[in-house]
Amino acid sequence: MKPGVRLGIDLGGTAVKLALVNEKGRVLELRRVDTSKKPRALVALLKEAVRPWRSRRLLGTGVGVAGDVDPARGVVRFAPNLKWTNVPLRALFRAARFPGPLHFENDATAAAWGAYHAELKGRSRNLVVMTLGTGVGGGVVLEGRVYRGATGSAGELGHMVIDPAGPRCGCGNRGCLETFLGGIHMAAWARNELRRSGRHVPEELSPGLLYQMARRGDALALRMWRRAGRALGVALSNLINIFNPDTVLLCGGVAGASPLLLRYARPELMRSRFVTARGAAKIRVSTDNQHLGVVGAALLVE
Amino acid sequence: MKPGVRLGIDLGGTAVKLALVNEKGRVLELRRVDTSKKPRALVALLKEAVRPWRSRRLLGTGVGVAGDVDPARGVVRFAPNLKWTNVPLRALFRAARFPGPLHFENDATAAAWGAYHAELKGRSRNLVVMTLGTGVGGGVVLEGRVYRGATGSAGELGHMVIDPAGPRCGCGNRGCLETFLGGIHMAAWARNELRRSGRHVPEELSPGLLYQMARRGDALALRMWRRAGRALGVALSNLINIFNPDTVLLCGGVAGASPLLLRYARPELMRSRFVTARGAAKIRVSTDNQHLGVVGAALLVE
Repeated sequence: MKPGVRLGIDLGGTAVKLALVNEKGRVLELRRVDTSKKPRALVALLKEAVRPWRSRRLLGTGVGVAGDVDPARGVVRFAPNLKWTNVPLRALFRAARFPGPLHFENDATAAAWGAYHAELKGRSRNLVVMTLGTGVGGGVVLEGRVYRGATGSAGELGHMVIDPAGPRCGCGNRGCLETFLGGIHMAAWARNELRRSGRHVPEELSPGLLYQMARRGDALALRMWRRAGRALGVALSNLINIFNPDTVLLCGGVAGASPLLLRYARPELMRSRFVTARGAAKIRVSTDNQHLGVVGAALLVE
Repeated sequence: MKPGVRLGIDLGGTAVKLALVNEKGRVLELRRVDTSKKPRALVALLKEAVRPWRSRRLLGTGVGVAGDVDPARGVVRFAPNLKWTNVPLRALFRAARFPGPLHFENDATAAAWGAYHAELKGRSRNLVVMTLGTGVGGGVVLEGRVYRGATGSAGELGHMVIDPAGPRCGCGNRGCLETFLGGIHMAAWARNELRRSGRHVPEELSPGLLYQMARRGDALALRMWRRAGRALGVALSNLINIFNPDTVLLCGGVAGASPLLLRYARPELMRSRFVTARGAAKIRVSTDNQHLGVVGAALLVE
């Protein structure tokens, strides 16, 4: 990676992170901006946000977007949380004179690249990254390179079907991994179960709170994590059989509950007699969780 | 691919195919040998089988083996149908003076490479090949290159779990794709259902016979193909979300039932709103089905 500073932008559903990132993946400066709904207004806002950095010599700008991105054309085909369809982001960034070259990517794929470089220091050849948050995302680095597939849409690991009779997913399918492991789905499940058992339902039922409850021995919360952990185990088993990775990295907020998740996931993993692939795959939990998306976006600039 | 003739060997559970293959993937000559159980005796038998070709100038030998192969060391770690464990195949082939260089690979991965070159003529960048036979195998070609993973074990697509409450699989897991779509599992399911409904159970209940029965409108056979087709649909949906391939190729004997299988698979595929990846993936049925394994093995010699 060429030495120097790059601008990284992580464009999520509710907030945008902007950072100056060095070639080792260190965040030198960081800013946050609320997501505005209209693309043009948002790009203007981002331009304003990077004004303090305008005297810096930057090697380019990398942008990760929570949605279906066409990296070749720099177009956001669809970003449900931003309510964007076919937004020509490269043209907008170019018109706003962001430092080029410009690179656009799905945010989870960018995060995978960030993890590969900044956290694993390139000590992996075949890496699967699962981003556990409100939803479940994924990105893959194969043979040391970002794998994008035919249209930049590869690595939608959260929408692997774990149980065809499972809950309805936002994607239209049933029983996707996300319906068991996504923060929003876990909260909905727990809310429903609490109500059914006549218990008080906390206003904000975050994965963090549910993890605390489980650690205090709450049976309902433990049941929820067991359900999520088993689904994770099935997903891990599938991904290991498919990719034969050397590393699977769990990141995102919900990865904080990994001790519990992995306790329930492991028995699912151990069922299979495909010992070579299982033995080769280290399952790691990200310790450098916070800025992988924005770091990865920056490091996608060559 | 360098012009010239290579020796390909497809080492399956019950038979070995040997072929001279040109750089376009055309089979010039073909021989078959029964699989003998002991590796050393088998290699001697193979050496005998290629004697008529000993005057040919060959660019090397590629071997596909039905099992877990270490391509780097040329060792067959485990081949359940051959009852082999840790067989140093490269050393045996070298001692028997097979024309080098020697290349060893999992048979389904070899078949994927054969399909990529000989059938698709390289007109694909990201290809997923599913081999539908007694079991369900797979191989992937990503960015125009064979993808092997960390230990050469990648692409075990038949052991993707489709339903965690599904039937017990030979691999130790439950509800693998293979338990719905593998010929041996389909026959077992049909035999059981025929018995339950008091019907005659044919001695040999092959997928071919079950396909004929379904085409004649037999309700039980149709139910079986619907079950298999739905599982295939879930698998295809997962693989498209994971790999975002331009092509998925179905090959192997059971792929002959693709018209029926895909009729039941498509509704599963259409559930998801991830339209970009789905739109990019052509699902094709191999028309050049017979020798992909032996051709691919040969073409793995550079």
